[in-house]
Amino acid sequence: MARHKLTISYDGTAYCGWQVQSGEKPSIQSLVQNALQTALRHTLDLTGSGRTDAGVHARGQTAHFDSDVDFDPNKLRLSLNGLLPSDVRIFDIESVASNFHARYSAQSKIYHYHLHLDRVSNPFSRLYRHQVYKRLSLPLMTSAAQRLLGTHDFTSFANEPQRGSVAHDPIRTLSRLDIVEQEGGVRLEYEADGFLYKMVRNLTGTLIEAGAGRISPSDIDKILAAKDRRKAPATTPPHGLFLMKVIY
Amino acid sequence: MARHKLTISYDGTAYCGWQVQSGEKPSIQSLVQNALQTALRHTLDLTGSGRTDAGVHARGQTAHFDSDVDFDPNKLRLSLNGLLPSDVRIFDIESVASNFHARYSAQSKIYHYHLHLDRVSNPFSRLYRHQVYKRLSLPLMTSAAQRLLGTHDFTSFANEPQRGSVAHDPIRTLSRLDIVEQEGGVRLEYEADGFLYKMVRNLTGTLIEAGAGRISPSDIDKILAAKDRRKAPATTPPHGLFLMKVIY
Repeated sequence: MARHKLTISYDGTAYCGWQVQSGEKPSIQSLVQNALQTALRHTLDLTGSGRTDAGVHARGQTAHFDSDVDFDPNKLRLSLNGLLPSDVRIFDIESVASNFHARYSAQSKIYHYHLHLDRVSNPFSRLYRHQVYKRLSLPLMTSAAQRLLGTHDFTSFANEPQRGSVAHDPIRTLSRLDIVEQEGGVRLEYEADGFLYKMVRNLTGTLIEAGAGRISPSDIDKILAAKDRRKAPATTPPHGLFLMKVIY
Repeated sequence: MARHKLTISYDGTAYCGWQVQSGEKPSIQSLVQNALQTALRHTLDLTGSGRTDAGVHARGQTAHFDSDVDFDPNKLRLSLNGLLPSDVRIFDIESVASNFHARYSAQSKIYHYHLHLDRVSNPFSRLYRHQVYKRLSLPLMTSAAQRLLGTHDFTSFANEPQRGSVAHDPIRTLSRLDIVEQEGGVRLEYEADGFLYKMVRNLTGTLIEAGAGRISPSDIDKILAAKDRRKAPATTPPHGLFLMKVIY
């Protein structure tokens, strides 16, 4: 039994997210697992690095599966991309050690959140960037971001998981939070050893309020200390969010 | 009666093109004209700078209309964008002279055509870039592009219009054809005093064949001289094409 790692890119617009949810839209996990089962002609379980929510995109989601079948990774990749819809693409298939685990072996993850700040929303970014009409100060956003960096209890930025509350450790280390100007707006680049449920979208909502001058950088410290989701601003929508890379 | 000019951006994926065609998809011209009629409460005709085909996108399509109504351009823009679907956006509304004509006053037009050249197609460019799996030589494409610059009879690069063949002058001046590298591929930037039907997509098909080494730069001269559409390579698909700007 050999273990293999997939690197997957998807446009989340048409899906219920990585994992199966109640609802009519398919999950990306089930689509890719079915394509693998068809190509390799045996049943298998595909384990992702973590869930992405409905509407969230990925450029570098990872997953692992086990198979006894000997295959050429490049040929399998082409077969899978032939079986999958064009909004889900397999970028890479690699052999990994049998103790590799897509979720538990991950050292850190990188997410990007895109804000569109032009006075007119853009037809080409409507599915991939969150439109903000407020004027945002990048220096204020950057000051707020500085307060979020490092190791904290991020309870104030975590939603309760929708189904079955898993007891978890709310301490995470946010090692990078860069605010990068790009055509039409800004990109928020987050890297951490892990993220709580909706944490990136909750942090982004808070940075928008900081940029609009509605909360001060020092309010960030109070929000963190409160350990209460109700103390932090609203969650931003899923379509601006991209899982960029899982680092092992 | 005052004349006004609109600048419009649209994702062409869901539409039959700028102008009404037979078929089920709506036209962008009719959507925008209807929104204007609703906002201004009178019937009017919206005249575009030219047609874009089904699936072709625009960042800077222009059109004009006449109205007796006094309006604030910024408020009308917001109203129109409220009435229109999010894949069609009005960027600008300006007053123009009564003899301004969106089509006949145009001095030149700029089109971009995007080629995606990565070995794996990208979920985020599938609707906006044409995927080419051949290896393309940019120096060969650039040499071929040099032969196309200038004033020529472009009959070999013009399709017959679908409905009613309008007798036209096939001489055009291609003043710029730049091949610009961008993430994942290249962008072909075309500027001319006007373009014949499907001319950009036909030129692009020829540049791809040149880049793949299947036709030599000197073949370009022969294709131009033949004045025969059948002598030039195939048309590329519409979704890589963007009308960027109409210059007056």
